[in-house]
Amino acid sequence: MNQPAQRWVYLNGEYVREADAKISIFDSALMFGDMIFEMTRSFNKKQFRLREHLERLALGMKIFHIPLDLSVDQLEARCLEVIEKNEPAFSKTDEHRLMINVSRGPLSIYHKVFDRPVGPTVVIADFPLKWTVVGMGALFDKGINAVVPSQRAIPAALMDPKIKNRSRMFYQTANIELSRMKGENNWALLLDPDGFIAEGTGCNFFIVKDKKIFTPEGRNILRGISRNYIFELAETLGISCREKNLEPYDVYAADEAFVTATPFCALPVTHFNFTKIGSGAMGAVTRQLLDVWGKNVGVDIVRQIKAFNEEVQLASAGPVSTPYQFKTEEK
Amino acid sequence: MNQPAQRWVYLNGEYVREADAKISIFDSALMFGDMIFEMTRSFNKKQFRLREHLERLALGMKIFHIPLDLSVDQLEARCLEVIEKNEPAFSKTDEHRLMINVSRGPLSIYHKVFDRPVGPTVVIADFPLKWTVVGMGALFDKGINAVVPSQRAIPAALMDPKIKNRSRMFYQTANIELSRMKGENNWALLLDPDGFIAEGTGCNFFIVKDKKIFTPEGRNILRGISRNYIFELAETLGISCREKNLEPYDVYAADEAFVTATPFCALPVTHFNFTKIGSGAMGAVTRQLLDVWGKNVGVDIVRQIKAFNEEVQLASAGPVSTPYQFKTEEK
Amino acid sequence: MNQPAQRWVYLNGEYVREADAKISIFDSALMFGDMIFEMTRSFNKKQFRLREHLERLALGMKIFHIPLDLSVDQLEARCLEVIEKNEPAFSKTDEHRLMINVSRGPLSIYHKVFDRPVGPTVVIADFPLKWTVVGMGALFDKGINAVVPSQRAIPAALMDPKIKNRSRMFYQTANIELSRMKGENNWALLLDPDGFIAEGTGCNFFIVKDKKIFTPEGRNILRGISRNYIFELAETLGISCREKNLEPYDVYAADEAFVTATPFCALPVTHFNFTKIGSGAMGAVTRQLLDVWGKNVGVDIVRQIKAFNEEVQLASAGPVSTPYQFKTEEK
Amino acid sequence: MNQPAQRWVYLNGEYVREADAKISIFDSALMFGDMIFEMTRSFNKKQFRLREHLERLALGMKIFHIPLDLSVDQLEARCLEVIEKNEPAFSKTDEHRLMINVSRGPLSIYHKVFDRPVGPTVVIADFPLKWTVVGMGALFDKGINAVVPSQRAIPAALMDPKIKNRSRMFYQTANIELSRMKGENNWALLLDPDGFIAEGTGCNFFIVKDKKIFTPEGRNILRGISRNYIFELAETLGISCREKNLEPYDVYAADEAFVTATPFCALPVTHFNFTKIGSGAMGAVTRQLLDVWGKNVGVDIVRQIKAFNEEVQLASAGPVSTPYQFKTEEK
Amino acid sequence: MNQPAQRWVYLNGEYVREADAKISIFDSALMFGDMIFEMTRSFNKKQFRLREHLERLALGMKIFHIPLDLSVDQLEARCLEVIEKNEPAFSKTDEHRLMINVSRGPLSIYHKVFDRPVGPTVVIADFPLKWTVVGMGALFDKGINAVVPSQRAIPAALMDPKIKNRSRMFYQTANIELSRMKGENNWALLLDPDGFIAEGTGCNFFIVKDKKIFTPEGRNILRGISRNYIFELAETLGISCREKNLEPYDVYAADEAFVTATPFCALPVTHFNFTKIGSGAMGAVTRQLLDVWGKNVGVDIVRQIKAFNEEVQLASAGPVSTPYQFKTEEK
Amino acid sequence: MNQPAQRWVYLNGEYVREADAKISIFDSALMFGDMIFEMTRSFNKKQFRLREHLERLALGMKIFHIPLDLSVDQLEARCLEVIEKNEPAFSKTDEHRLMINVSRGPLSIYHKVFDRPVGPTVVIADFPLKWTVVGMGALFDKGINAVVPSQRAIPAALMDPKIKNRSRMFYQTANIELSRMKGENNWALLLDPDGFIAEGTGCNFFIVKDKKIFTPEGRNILRGISRNYIFELAETLGISCREKNLEPYDVYAADEAFVTATPFCALPVTHFNFTKIGSGAMGAVTRQLLDVWGKNVGVDIVRQIKAFNEEVQLASAGPVSTPYQFKTEEK
Repeated sequence: MNQPAQRWVYLNGEYVREADAKISIFDSALMFGDMIFEMTRSFNKKQFRLREHLERLALGMKIFHIPLDLSVDQLEARCLEVIEKNEPAFSKTDEHRLMINVSRGPLSIYHKVFDRPVGPTVVIADFPLKWTVVGMGALFDKGINAVVPSQRAIPAALMDPKIKNRSRMFYQTANIELSRMKGENNWALLLDPDGFIAEGTGCNFFIVKDKKIFTPEGRNILRGISRNYIFELAETLGISCREKNLEPYDVYAADEAFVTATPFCALPVTHFNFTKIGSGAMGAVTRQLLDVWGKNVGVDIVRQIKAFNEEVQLASAGPVSTPYQFKTEEK
Repeated sequence: MNQPAQRWVYLNGEYVREADAKISIFDSALMFGDMIFEMTRSFNKKQFRLREHLERLALGMKIFHIPLDLSVDQLEARCLEVIEKNEPAFSKTDEHRLMINVSRGPLSIYHKVFDRPVGPTVVIADFPLKWTVVGMGALFDKGINAVVPSQRAIPAALMDPKIKNRSRMFYQTANIELSRMKGENNWALLLDPDGFIAEGTGCNFFIVKDKKIFTPEGRNILRGISRNYIFELAETLGISCREKNLEPYDVYAADEAFVTATPFCALPVTHFNFTKIGSGAMGAVTRQLLDVWGKNVGVDIVRQIKAFNEEVQLASAGPVSTPYQFKTEEK
Repeated sequence: MNQPAQRWVYLNGEYVREADAKISIFDSALMFGDMIFEMTRSFNKKQFRLREHLERLALGMKIFHIPLDLSVDQLEARCLEVIEKNEPAFSKTDEHRLMINVSRGPLSIYHKVFDRPVGPTVVIADFPLKWTVVGMGALFDKGINAVVPSQRAIPAALMDPKIKNRSRMFYQTANIELSRMKGENNWALLLDPDGFIAEGTGCNFFIVKDKKIFTPEGRNILRGISRNYIFELAETLGISCREKNLEPYDVYAADEAFVTATPFCALPVTHFNFTKIGSGAMGAVTRQLLDVWGKNVGVDIVRQIKAFNEEVQLASAGPVSTPYQFKTEEK
Repeated sequence: MNQPAQRWVYLNGEYVREADAKISIFDSALMFGDMIFEMTRSFNKKQFRLREHLERLALGMKIFHIPLDLSVDQLEARCLEVIEKNEPAFSKTDEHRLMINVSRGPLSIYHKVFDRPVGPTVVIADFPLKWTVVGMGALFDKGINAVVPSQRAIPAALMDPKIKNRSRMFYQTANIELSRMKGENNWALLLDPDGFIAEGTGCNFFIVKDKKIFTPEGRNILRGISRNYIFELAETLGISCREKNLEPYDVYAADEAFVTATPFCALPVTHFNFTKIGSGAMGAVTRQLLDVWGKNVGVDIVRQIKAFNEEVQLASAGPVSTPYQFKTEEK
Repeated sequence: MNQPAQRWVYLNGEYVREADAKISIFDSALMFGDMIFEMTRSFNKKQFRLREHLERLALGMKIFHIPLDLSVDQLEARCLEVIEKNEPAFSKTDEHRLMINVSRGPLSIYHKVFDRPVGPTVVIADFPLKWTVVGMGALFDKGINAVVPSQRAIPAALMDPKIKNRSRMFYQTANIELSRMKGENNWALLLDPDGFIAEGTGCNFFIVKDKKIFTPEGRNILRGISRNYIFELAETLGISCREKNLEPYDVYAADEAFVTATPFCALPVTHFNFTKIGSGAMGAVTRQLLDVWGKNVGVDIVRQIKAFNEEVQLASAGPVSTPYQFKTEEK
Repeated sequence: MNQPAQRWVYLNGEYVREADAKISIFDSALMFGDMIFEMTRSFNKKQFRLREHLERLALGMKIFHIPLDLSVDQLEARCLEVIEKNEPAFSKTDEHRLMINVSRGPLSIYHKVFDRPVGPTVVIADFPLKWTVVGMGALFDKGINAVVPSQRAIPAALMDPKIKNRSRMFYQTANIELSRMKGENNWALLLDPDGFIAEGTGCNFFIVKDKKIFTPEGRNILRGISRNYIFELAETLGISCREKNLEPYDVYAADEAFVTATPFCALPVTHFNFTKIGSGAMGAVTRQLLDVWGKNVGVDIVRQIKAFNEEVQLASAGPVSTPYQFKTEEK
């Protein structure tokens, strides 16, 4: 009786049930991975930087010439409407994670499949943040082991990761590689073809050295909203934070390291390629950033995620899997 | 009253109507462009090299660790079943174009969306070849103008085009560039980052020089089934045909050039970057290959495609668009 | 009766008529494109940063070991002499555009062709600025569309664009590509092989974002005198202006963009790859820079160039061509 | 009284004296290094493969869109006319070395400089082969030392060396480097950016290993007419000769090596980076190729060049300089 | 009482005990990794292709200008002398594995350390083959799992692997990466920076496809003596064997794969990146090659290595470690 | 009777005579160049930044997983002990140059060679600074000529120069190239594969332009202790000093240039590629840095090194060789 109400997904102007939120096999999204998207979260039910997410989406649409006739204002209104409609289906303690997808719609040669005119595809889904972060609570204590796989990031000159897109099959290749590593809590951290640290398969990367924060230049990475926020928080705290080409050597030599992403804000990276970074625990600067972030949004970020975990463990006796880890058959 | 019967799409063991052939927004296919596929055609209703297509698909599934429990035999049986079921909806003169999609299915953190267990996704669609090739009849006479856009092919070391996949947003970038070119019948021909000719956004490329056929090495390209067949036909005809790194210079210096793809087999490339190749018309070797191909499969390939065009023009008064051309708003 | 007096070109210590200013086919300049040069302009008849131009020329001569026995002082004196000699042939409203060429002269194996000893070649030509900028007046209003061609800039490690040289056949390749694009006012903007914005085929590129000015790092580009001056003007105006690796994404996301070159100082770039930048008109910062520049040199830059246009249209009934656009036969 | 008659240069339809063969400073050739060319030679006064040279020139004109209205036939006729006209000025023992230059002519904005319509520029000069090869006689015995400078060849993807063009300032950079090396008879042999042997600054490179001939793939090099002829000669002699990516290691391990160019046909490379190759003298295969070549054209190639040397030494008491060596001031 | 006699190492003309075979810390070998070497083996006590090994060594000395005054003949004589001297210390069933090291000796500024003149360093050690191959017996049945680490091979243009040298710290980096993988019998297989298969950290790589053998081009690899021998064996057997740029895709698609190295001749590669190749067992062609090789040298290669294993297990109760696997502390 | 006492080298816990400081041929240091090291110096017998050297060593050991059980404190104690023990063997005016080598020791398959357990190898040698710098006195006046060889620096992504390691055979390749250059005092200055200035084969590089100091980014170089100290000194002096990608052009355009290394602190670079930099003598900023450095450590750096020279010349009549110059047989 946990979630008695139904969640609805906005799909081209209509509302459909989550399990029915589907896209035609003739859509450019499925033919070419030609879809751009955003994923957000709320803190205390209030969306965080929704406008910034939507503006990034609009820029992507402009670059890819997706002729959607919804302004950022209209998209924002739709998002809020979706949340309002779904709130009854959310527990009090959960947060709204939106997924906003846009594609140019079915390719023209397949238009005849449909009995009515078709255009760009817009999806706004809204599901519990809990799904994404459950099991991550322990990582704030133990940290993750960032591992460099053989797979390299595709450089921006070939396909720009700054446009949050759905042509990321190579992320799965990296994840499959990681699944063959010994130990736990291994996350892929991709190098770009020049050998610089790029990003994780879903998170940005930072190091702290001599009380200064460094993160890869905004080139072969997504310029994450959480990443942007770290710059702001650092400024507030009077900590220097700047972009720099980072190499594995810099990570080994760092005092602390962390990754950022919308669902968990920031997680400590305590090991790099199975080698301890700094003290091997969450560093002081990382903690400080998480604290101020939490204060700013009125949520104890770590406690909330740990609580999700307990909630789920109470509900089911089964083990909690780390969602970012890829499962594959071993040899 | 042209196509009174309905076409059906095989979707995870069930048959759905074409317009209802959709994939969940939580599927890895849509989250990561993580889907592999094949597209085939028939000649006189008989599938061409279906087995070869499915073996390439199976190799892709092995490399990407998609745990589908269908053997190549079983996939082949499904394909033939789909065709049989759809034949009533096809005109006598049309051919079956299959689209076979496979993905690893919804990501595990979203499994709870569905009320039953979910696994890999399999789609087999079957639609008229006519849709793809209509309007191409004239190209056998005029040829296409292959143009090198600024967008480069992603090299195999970063994401392998030899695995026919759906992470190809950069194809659309190339197509958008082409839409800004003057003139007609311009098709994108991508260079790889080394400056070698790679492939079109959906076709392989060949040149003929001194009665020998050359095609780019099987590296940063799809090793197309039609491409493979050209090697066989050339051998039959006693014409040398081999792989070689080709540069723009080689194309300018060629006697003739052509592209191959499943729907149209081979089309002459009469211009390269708006510059005439050889005589500027279909070359003798290209014609010979099309002739033998047609004889082998019992279909006059050019005539069939031209006939599709007339059929459509009879049915509708409107103009026939070139399907491979991308439409975008001009400045 | 517009220009009754004759213009003279300084050629190895002598003055020749413009049409007779020629270089031997045995000169290293013609054998290897082995010539370095500068092109200047005046404002109100006063040369702008002539000294800076000549010092750049001298650095190039040092690097290429061109054993010219003229000091920068001497070269400057020659330039002023040339201008003085030509002033009678210039209308009151026109400006002096100098072209200064230096090469190491005829190759030694061809010295026997000449009946006297030969050494390095020096040319100082002086022609009306009007020739270069006529037709550009409208561009201050409409702006140009900067388009990335397939041709990449040659990186400095292979042949350094910072030395203003005459081995630039690849500029013509880019210009030929541009001539095939739809629409008007398209100018080539080259990427370097790393995918960073380099320069136009004759101009430097800037963007403005959040009231800060950015321009590509001084690596695979000419470090233009006008570019240098923008840094100075920005400092005067209290606007941040700095070098940064710029990618196409940054241009799409910019608020405004402009190009700089000696003849026109700065022109707005209102479109990038046929996509509107910012408002699609000259931006506030660009305008401010042009204004201050004009004030500093006592010339209303935009008005002057527009006036040239009217002047020419009065003189001839024919259309005014955009000089930077390359004409080529269409397919 | 050696050469009493005057030599004439064909220049845009007229004949001018050698010393007056000049090109306007406003020509695209001088503005951009935008000129393509050929240089030929005769054997016993008969041009060698003139047609092949002119067809390569025509291909270059097509690629660079130089709208010259002379066919290959017409160009050939002009060449023969030039030779006929100049023959009186040639000694009996000398050979005709043609230099054929073509550019698109003065840039349009400078057309007003000229008092008559201007178009593409064509130059056909004809001078004694002796000039180029005098001093090389001894090299057939001692061989040259091929040295890899720091300067790399510009790869074809950026500016194609297969089009014989005049944007080769980087050749001079390589030659300047070579002038700082100890010893004599050092010639630059460029690597391409991949580290493969490309070509000399004016010659193609071959090695012989286990009685097989190898030469770099026809990619980042000029596909020389002499290089082509070596393939033919090898076939006649039953010696395998094929293209292969060659690395410095392969040269060190070679049994013999040689370079080819039009004026001297083939010269032995006896040292590579100051290290002996094979026996350190002209190899048996090189000698065999020179012999057959000489027989085919009715000239003892080595003896002729050595004779030029003696002739000159008789005429003047001064030393004979190696023409390919670059002179520069030492530190 | 197994090996009562002592083994001796040749060191600069003297014989020292194995444990005393040491090189000065002032030697260029230790200062720069500036040492080249060979490692051989015998079959039935007879050295295999010793001459070929020494000629490769001599080529390396020539390229690196190591002024050793021993000819290949003299080196060969020394090797045979070393073996003769050590034979008493070898069991009947064991084979002689030579290690021949050459460096240019102590750097000149440290010569004063020594009380006598110092020159190049030569070492010839001779130890039981058993040491290297013990534990490998089972691999002929199970095969190895070749895994691509993040570490790339250093390309020949930067430091040539064709010269067997001691600057290979990056091999250890690759081996450390491998030690973190799950499962057993994982061997590193390096890609070069272009993404082509290069070599293992001590072995060459081959695939078999459609009964044809392919191995990476001899570029970014050691051209192994065993690799050379495979070409010979294949020719004898009438099997096509040729060099080709191989990519991971080609390995996944292969029918069989194997690695070669002097100690074990050839070992099956049954998995690639934890994915089964072909049948997952030693392939028919691999077996055929091992069989003929064994016949040619009069040794059952597989049986011999398996016998070493049993011998050791009888002698000691402890487990047998795989020598090529790197041990490192786990996180 | 100059140095009557003996110097001792610390070797795995024991003290051996210098000439006996040797490492087993089975050590990973000799098998793979797998050794990391530091070299220090004293000023007035006091070690300079020893701690900083040892911390860099410790970081290298962590990255390469060398399981040495000595802390930085313990290593420091050993170093001081070595110096104390050797001081009697040093003249009053000389300084202690330590060489600290660490490797993982003999490879496990060779452990049986030794009659006792073996582990990591540690060497601490201590020899007169004089050996390294003798003959350099004149360079403070004349400066060196930094020359770019064909050999490129290996980029950090392939083998990281920031870890001071012994896999540097390519340094010798560069030095061999330099030995073929005309003139004197030529030192190799390597470019990285991107064409940026990296470092010398044993020193860091700086330029001074407009009273600002620039040095290559800390990427494809060793981040030298002397280099770090220049940053500190510059800050003290109020001179801007920062990292920047430097190209040859920047060096040609510089006002002064210098290299830094532990033994000589800083030496002026007065020529670059045989071309004068600035005035061609030691620049004012270089002098200022050397002065302050000297004051801080209580040693007149230039005078001390010049004095070493005189001392040696008094002792021996022979010529003093430049230690950094590589001797090789000329052609």
